[in-house]
Amino acid sequence: MSAPVLRVGVIGAGNVGAALVELLGDPSRRAALLDAATAELELVGVAVRDLTRPRPGVPRALLSDDALGLAARADLDILVEVMGGIEPARGYIEAALGRGVSVVTANKALMAEAGTELARLAHDNGADLFYEAAVGGAIPILRALRTSLAGERIERVMGIVNGTTNFILSKMSSEASDYAPALGEAQALGYAEVDPSADVEGFDAAAKVQVISSLAFGTPLVGELISREGITGVRAVDVEFAQRMGYVIKLLGVAERVGPSGISRRVHPSFVPREHPLAAVHGAMNAVFVEGERSGPLMWLGAGAGGFPTATAVLGDVLDAARNRVSGRHDVPFTVDDTLHSVPTEETTSVFYLSLDVLDEPGVLASVAGVFGRHGVSIQSMEQFGVGHEARLCFVTHAARTGDVTATLEGLRELSAVDSIGACIRVIDGGEQ
Amino acid sequence: MSAPVLRVGVIGAGNVGAALVELLGDPSRRAALLDAATAELELVGVAVRDLTRPRPGVPRALLSDDALGLAARADLDILVEVMGGIEPARGYIEAALGRGVSVVTANKALMAEAGTELARLAHDNGADLFYEAAVGGAIPILRALRTSLAGERIERVMGIVNGTTNFILSKMSSEASDYAPALGEAQALGYAEVDPSADVEGFDAAAKVQVISSLAFGTPLVGELISREGITGVRAVDVEFAQRMGYVIKLLGVAERVGPSGISRRVHPSFVPREHPLAAVHGAMNAVFVEGERSGPLMWLGAGAGGFPTATAVLGDVLDAARNRVSGRHDVPFTVDDTLHSVPTEETTSVFYLSLDVLDEPGVLASVAGVFGRHGVSIQSMEQFGVGHEARLCFVTHAARTGDVTATLEGLRELSAVDSIGACIRVIDGGEQ
Repeated sequence: MSAPVLRVGVIGAGNVGAALVELLGDPSRRAALLDAATAELELVGVAVRDLTRPRPGVPRALLSDDALGLAARADLDILVEVMGGIEPARGYIEAALGRGVSVVTANKALMAEAGTELARLAHDNGADLFYEAAVGGAIPILRALRTSLAGERIERVMGIVNGTTNFILSKMSSEASDYAPALGEAQALGYAEVDPSADVEGFDAAAKVQVISSLAFGTPLVGELISREGITGVRAVDVEFAQRMGYVIKLLGVAERVGPSGISRRVHPSFVPREHPLAAVHGAMNAVFVEGERSGPLMWLGAGAGGFPTATAVLGDVLDAARNRVSGRHDVPFTVDDTLHSVPTEETTSVFYLSLDVLDEPGVLASVAGVFGRHGVSIQSMEQFGVGHEARLCFVTHAARTGDVTATLEGLRELSAVDSIGACIRVIDGGEQ
Repeated sequence: MSAPVLRVGVIGAGNVGAALVELLGDPSRRAALLDAATAELELVGVAVRDLTRPRPGVPRALLSDDALGLAARADLDILVEVMGGIEPARGYIEAALGRGVSVVTANKALMAEAGTELARLAHDNGADLFYEAAVGGAIPILRALRTSLAGERIERVMGIVNGTTNFILSKMSSEASDYAPALGEAQALGYAEVDPSADVEGFDAAAKVQVISSLAFGTPLVGELISREGITGVRAVDVEFAQRMGYVIKLLGVAERVGPSGISRRVHPSFVPREHPLAAVHGAMNAVFVEGERSGPLMWLGAGAGGFPTATAVLGDVLDAARNRVSGRHDVPFTVDDTLHSVPTEETTSVFYLSLDVLDEPGVLASVAGVFGRHGVSIQSMEQFGVGHEARLCFVTHAARTGDVTATLEGLRELSAVDSIGACIRVIDGGEQ
């Protein structure tokens, strides 16, 4: 019995697109791909914006600058979109899905913006919409949530899903350096953009939290805002204090259940206990930590970026879409649970680390402690560094409502003995819900 | 459109079976299961050996002691086998597969013994054979190898796949205790059996290496022997030396390519660098570290045992088998690659840690170093502990052929100044192939 032939088109030939073309054409993989796809995959076109740029490894005859023409080809089976950005990528994907062509994309921004609509379009037309590479590069976490964990009730997901910020925080930790020089090093090595705000302000992580949350909990993908705090305010002194207390600082994307029908989604720096598996995620690596009601904790770790690692995730999706196409079925990308509501971060509970610059004079601690007490925030430990005008108080609270901690910070700012608030960072532990 | 009904039978109602019955009957999961299975799952029978034992949570009317009758029921769609052992489990599974009933099993011993034959039987009868829970408890590593990584060339897999030994080694490391008291504690806590040999001698890990290797590389599952060394020879002094050098000792199950068509499969204690993600796998947790040619390193971590964690993996398989059944297809469990051959461990290469008890007399180091040199094993570092009759030399070699290291040990034993060989443990690093 000869295998059916499926026609694949690719839009975008940057790092990921070029790597995918190489994987699809690699003779040493031919047998494995045929086996896994249950079909022969024929690459019929690669659409790029600029035809004059050299594309080593991409057969010249396949190149065109007509992406829409490729997406709307009558004989296409699978469209891969790895150009990025919202438009025109969205238009190409809609053209393909509208004709029942399955789509594989790595586009986290587009999925976070319009995923629910695109998923419906795919389903209505009997096509697959897969986007494994949109989160965590090579890490196959999305398929695991869709399949292996489809029957499990997920309680919380915490991810290190931005390699740039993890690289910067790892540098600050291993070299006791401050934020600015660590950012400079990340930029020199190509890990951070000249304008690093999408990474360091947490926008990239927030889009990924939205994508993971839709699969873990059934929250919609419709450009909703995730509460977001970046790493620009993390200082060497906080990293050092964290280390002394047995923690490392990581930028976490979190999605978790709060009460029977609430979901909190947010991005923020966190104190992670040194013994926690997430603490061992170094440099530009990514990881996603999932707590299921019955599975217990699970973690996935891997390269969060890079042409080939990301292309392997895209390839996994192409093979899945191919198998489905051959057997005439399609998967439902995710199901929206309408009974859920978003819980504001202020209403969530956590242990907090706070540092204050204070005047070292009699009665300061008493007045500071009084502010904590008035807002119902109790203190687990306190340490003072330095004396006189340089004094700094570092606190770790017991589990407290975030809104109460915010109110405590407001109250502390009004004290004349408090020069400034240095940091207010969540501490991940058993007490956080 | 009303969903089709699929009939599920379960053989075994121990920890895992009872947990699975609870998950299948949990009203709060009903909608999610219906969604994921694309069918209603009807539990039609639970077969047990001893009908007189109380089975809390298992509806009385479903219990029977006729496992073969359940497996051969004409209207069965999916059989779950969680009784363990080779026979009679194998007969039940064959009865079901032979009638085209899909089978989900957690039986690593049976899969390692007869997996290739069972997979062929499943395929020939258009049925699925899934066994996610056979390796790593709740960790969904097998489905990832079958689907997401189906197009990737795996170079090496290293797993902490036995929670008992990881618990013992973690205890030895955190409490600087010796093997015997750590084993005693594991036994007292129920982590180790009264006869712990299946765990501490590496038999359990070897069966799991065989199962993982069949999916990662296409090696057959036919009761082949895996080279195997347990943890009974690991002493407190080795753990302490490892820590001082920046390592932790873990029992690893390894499967890796050697040359163009060789596969080495083995189980042995290893020095793992403290910065390696496997070093952060504590207590009874399991983890599988996969190195793909293009994906780079990937790791999965989770609970390796326990009724509910294991049952969530079984449930994931049941849902997958259900989806396949509804759409009239089945997956190929794995494909055997006939071009591969097993490479004896002696022909593999690694960095090694060796410790020798020696008489502290002039010329000892020279004669010891001479033995290393004659066998082509070069020394990376050496340290001496103690003096006189208590002297111990600890070496770390450069990458060397295992056979040459074995010959070195033979040579060292013949030296009159060498009292005994304390340990010979592989060191995992970039140099190991």
